[in-house]
Amino acid sequence: MFDTDSSNPTPPASSQAAPDSMQQVCKPLPASQKVYQSGQIHPQLKVPMRQVELTNGEQIALYDTSGPYTDPDVAIDVFKGLPVQARSAWVDARADTQAYSGRDAAALDDGFKNEERQQPSLMALRQQAQALQRQPRCATQKGQAVTQMAYARRGIITPEMEYVAIRENGRREWMREYLADAQREQRLAGNSLGAAIPAVITPEFVRDEVARGRAIIPANINHPELEPMIIGRNFLVKINANIGNSAVTSSIEEEVEKLVWAIRWGADTVMDLSTGKNIHTTRDWIIRNSPVPIGTVPIYQALEKVGGIAEDLTWEIFRDTLIEQAEQGVDYFTVHAGVRLPFIPLTAKRRTGIVSRGGSILAKWCMVHHRENFIYTHFEEICEIMKAYDVSFSLGDGLRPGSLSDANDEAQMAELKTLGELTQVAWQHDVQTIIEGPGHVPMHMIKANMDEQLRLCHEAPFYTLGPLTVDISPGYDHIASAIGAAMIGWYGTAMLCYVTPKEHLGLPDREDVKQGIVAYKIAAHAADVAKGHPGARARDDALSQARFEFRWTDQFNLGLDPETAREMHDETLPKDSAKVAHFCSMCGPKFCSMKITQDVREYAAQVGVSEDAALQQGMAQKAQEFQRAGGEIYLVQE
Amino acid sequence: MFDTDSSNPTPPASSQAAPDSMQQVCKPLPASQKVYQSGQIHPQLKVPMRQVELTNGEQIALYDTSGPYTDPDVAIDVFKGLPVQARSAWVDARADTQAYSGRDAAALDDGFKNEERQQPSLMALRQQAQALQRQPRCATQKGQAVTQMAYARRGIITPEMEYVAIRENGRREWMREYLADAQREQRLAGNSLGAAIPAVITPEFVRDEVARGRAIIPANINHPELEPMIIGRNFLVKINANIGNSAVTSSIEEEVEKLVWAIRWGADTVMDLSTGKNIHTTRDWIIRNSPVPIGTVPIYQALEKVGGIAEDLTWEIFRDTLIEQAEQGVDYFTVHAGVRLPFIPLTAKRRTGIVSRGGSILAKWCMVHHRENFIYTHFEEICEIMKAYDVSFSLGDGLRPGSLSDANDEAQMAELKTLGELTQVAWQHDVQTIIEGPGHVPMHMIKANMDEQLRLCHEAPFYTLGPLTVDISPGYDHIASAIGAAMIGWYGTAMLCYVTPKEHLGLPDREDVKQGIVAYKIAAHAADVAKGHPGARARDDALSQARFEFRWTDQFNLGLDPETAREMHDETLPKDSAKVAHFCSMCGPKFCSMKITQDVREYAAQVGVSEDAALQQGMAQKAQEFQRAGGEIYLVQE
Repeated sequence: MFDTDSSNPTPPASSQAAPDSMQQVCKPLPASQKVYQSGQIHPQLKVPMRQVELTNGEQIALYDTSGPYTDPDVAIDVFKGLPVQARSAWVDARADTQAYSGRDAAALDDGFKNEERQQPSLMALRQQAQALQRQPRCATQKGQAVTQMAYARRGIITPEMEYVAIRENGRREWMREYLADAQREQRLAGNSLGAAIPAVITPEFVRDEVARGRAIIPANINHPELEPMIIGRNFLVKINANIGNSAVTSSIEEEVEKLVWAIRWGADTVMDLSTGKNIHTTRDWIIRNSPVPIGTVPIYQALEKVGGIAEDLTWEIFRDTLIEQAEQGVDYFTVHAGVRLPFIPLTAKRRTGIVSRGGSILAKWCMVHHRENFIYTHFEEICEIMKAYDVSFSLGDGLRPGSLSDANDEAQMAELKTLGELTQVAWQHDVQTIIEGPGHVPMHMIKANMDEQLRLCHEAPFYTLGPLTVDISPGYDHIASAIGAAMIGWYGTAMLCYVTPKEHLGLPDREDVKQGIVAYKIAAHAADVAKGHPGARARDDALSQARFEFRWTDQFNLGLDPETAREMHDETLPKDSAKVAHFCSMCGPKFCSMKITQDVREYAAQVGVSEDAALQQGMAQKAQEFQRAGGEIYLVQE
Repeated sequence: MFDTDSSNPTPPASSQAAPDSMQQVCKPLPASQKVYQSGQIHPQLKVPMRQVELTNGEQIALYDTSGPYTDPDVAIDVFKGLPVQARSAWVDARADTQAYSGRDAAALDDGFKNEERQQPSLMALRQQAQALQRQPRCATQKGQAVTQMAYARRGIITPEMEYVAIRENGRREWMREYLADAQREQRLAGNSLGAAIPAVITPEFVRDEVARGRAIIPANINHPELEPMIIGRNFLVKINANIGNSAVTSSIEEEVEKLVWAIRWGADTVMDLSTGKNIHTTRDWIIRNSPVPIGTVPIYQALEKVGGIAEDLTWEIFRDTLIEQAEQGVDYFTVHAGVRLPFIPLTAKRRTGIVSRGGSILAKWCMVHHRENFIYTHFEEICEIMKAYDVSFSLGDGLRPGSLSDANDEAQMAELKTLGELTQVAWQHDVQTIIEGPGHVPMHMIKANMDEQLRLCHEAPFYTLGPLTVDISPGYDHIASAIGAAMIGWYGTAMLCYVTPKEHLGLPDREDVKQGIVAYKIAAHAADVAKGHPGARARDDALSQARFEFRWTDQFNLGLDPETAREMHDETLPKDSAKVAHFCSMCGPKFCSMKITQDVREYAAQVGVSEDAALQQGMAQKAQEFQRAGGEIYLVQE
């Protein structure tokens, strides 16, 4: 465990109140409140949703990634971490894990030599995280898998499984009308392209998907703060946001705030890609405060431990890093096990070579030693570690293309085939596994990626970066990649790793992170709608209905970013009265097509062309009401 | 003609110098200069391209929509309009048109009553545009078509046709290496999905495509300022940006600046959607200063002429407006001829009814009079007008879906079928025609739109708004729609109408317009690459090559927005030295994968796995050079 026996520790600046900016990111979104749903198999479950109150009295419950931060009833103290009671009890109840003393913490975990660690500033930093130390747990018996996959294969529906089933379904009550529309008309059905999405996600369906390896629930037993989520082709498409530590200044509030900001806008998982000093300590800060799964790339930390010299990496250092991070509660590890020695020369003629950081580190190691990648050769030993904590594999695509010109080439496909072989090894150990994918791929070559992944990797979930569909948009690569992400999401990718506008150029700031997340929420939702995830388009329908009925506030609040939508509307029509006006600034009252449509409905009812006369009559009346009411509230424009 | 015989006109503020902001938007993009290419059939042609000078001495010529504004040798005076010699001579040389006095200008053209027009401020406004008045031309013989389609069908390769052929090909010299790569490897070929894109666009190919109606060259004979461009499935995908007059304040510089801003970022055509007062005068300002085709929706102006009362519209007023705008030089008209009386009730049960402004105006007219749409009943008379000036049809989709829920419904498809029928009528008159398309369409329903359009409209070019793939992204609809736009562009759409972040919320400002255009340039380029337009991906290859070789400045300058890319890089690594550093702020020097790839090349050469040993050897040497040079210029980071 982390050694804290030091004299004269500087006390943390505050152990109670979060700073102002933290309070800002914890404020619930407009007209929203946190509601919880309990389980049937596991009645103690409290599955969170964000309930949006519409101005017409409707209540719409949306998938909510923001965790306890947006629940005013939860006292947030980043120095203590999130309340963890619920999931701790689930893990305890399985009675197959035990607390243990853990590996000995080393100065090197934070990138320091032993003597450096005694500096007061560093002592203070570690002190800040002292209350976040937890005793690790692992499987009681050596070789035993305490993974969701192991339980699923034994027929057990864990609380985690029922939790994600409830979460994926959402509240069907408010969707009823929209779902009925979709059932009535074949035109409104999705096209799942061979996915097997049921009308209702049952806990048993979740279990079965996890057992088959078609979905994972990343959930380290040492991450009890987690609100479980599922990644799989037959579920809602998820997105990941990357965060990293600040090179210059770093405090617990600052690092946790990045996380809270990302999940506020909808990140389903967060990868902590910190490098440099203090990464062990920073990771404690993040995991203890994270309701979403945390992923890492352990080779980054391993490389720090050997002073950045790739050739000095050893299996022992890597292994020790895996255990270190597993004990902290990391939910999934990206490991570049497919960067095999014989594949490296295949990249030599590429336009942009190897563009994965992890991939290039391992390629260098392999070359210098002229030996096979140690992650590949020790893969079974890694499985033994993963299954003792339920850390999931994210098998990294170290040879992904970094330009259109390198897309779908021999190197990429050779690696993918290897990842498929390793998936089967992982599954023999009941280790949950997802597969990482490209990269830069032109639109017409995207589907082949998905098809090959499904074929070679036995339907293990695909987790892609973009793909970027052009190379010529530095500064706008969130858009270039959202195009590819939406398409591959529809084709079957389970999780999309976001790209920010700063991709290829620099480190994303707060606004870049938001832009990247929103672009990817659009891509993921577009994929959900296209696949026909039950209820996905109900939110679109509700928003469009609000749009048509000139319920401006509801239109903003059902959107992905209510505040920005309202601000944009305010720019041209700032008055409150404009939020109920029956037109907008784009067309003005004279040209408002939606207003005219009200007349159309009346007309259609009169001429009786429509089949459903009763419905029409109701609409006609509604139209008349609108006209009467509208006459008084139209603003004079121009 | 415009009556200018007024006493005491206020002289324009300046007839020489453009204001500062105008100078800003005229400044060539970084490292860029305007170059021109001449023709073979028509040696007098001066086809513009933007030549980008790379730091390694390469010269890359890119498609350039920015017109004479970015040519320092052209003196810009918005009060006089662009120099027009070139295309005037082409029109003259055909000797089938004549100048004539034109229709009498009316106060109502600008939305005023006669007495209002004498106000000094209005007089001043018109005075500003006095030097922009041109005598209109039309076909010498009644019923004669002076359209590009008519010439094409007679086997004539016009200067316009050769011009666009040169423009579409670009300079193949600099692309040679990249094109050779693509030819060597089948993997790099596009998938045109049935389009017939040749390896080289010849003037004869252009002629043939125009003759078949598969492409149009919008080019009113009264728009001699035009730099011709082509819209068709077998050519580069184009984008349109919409601009409109400012409601409050308006000056010629301000309105022209919007146009120049839009073409600076790549708008291929611009639609002037002005409404309200002074739209005739504003249109003169825009067309006389526009090197790109200008489209309008004439029903907007017609509606202004009847005080905004849709039911007061008449065929005579509409007809007069068409002639008015044809004489001014509008290149294409959106007309909602497919909003037929019997289709209107089909929209009654829609979630969002009719969302097209023009469509709803005509629907209202049809309903009130219970008569067939006068644009439909007078369609042949409209063709007579169009062909006398070579105004192209953009057959509007007045019944396009305004929400996912209404996509591909009966109303939309009934209208599309009608548009196909009208296309054949237009073609009988040799009138060039494109077809407008949706709207809001989920990803899996996009292809059906394209397929039906091709089938029903006989391969007339498709021109789509988006489509938006989700409804839940107010504030970010440029992204939601760029996804659909890229896909439908690949499937065969010839031109994409942009959507800005303000869509559904308010009037776009300057920054919104830029965001919308860049998002659509990405979509269009992604489509070009996927279709396999010859040379399209050469720009990606050149940029990726620069990225791989750490030529940061070249990477910025080959992007869609060089200044933003550079600014983003500056945020983390502002020093000039960072622009040649062999790493970036994203990974830092230790983790730089591209750096490691240099080693890979050396390694591959040593182990001799690769086929092309000589190439490898060269690369290995280069890698060594990099290492030697690199050791000295790496910046210490963190």
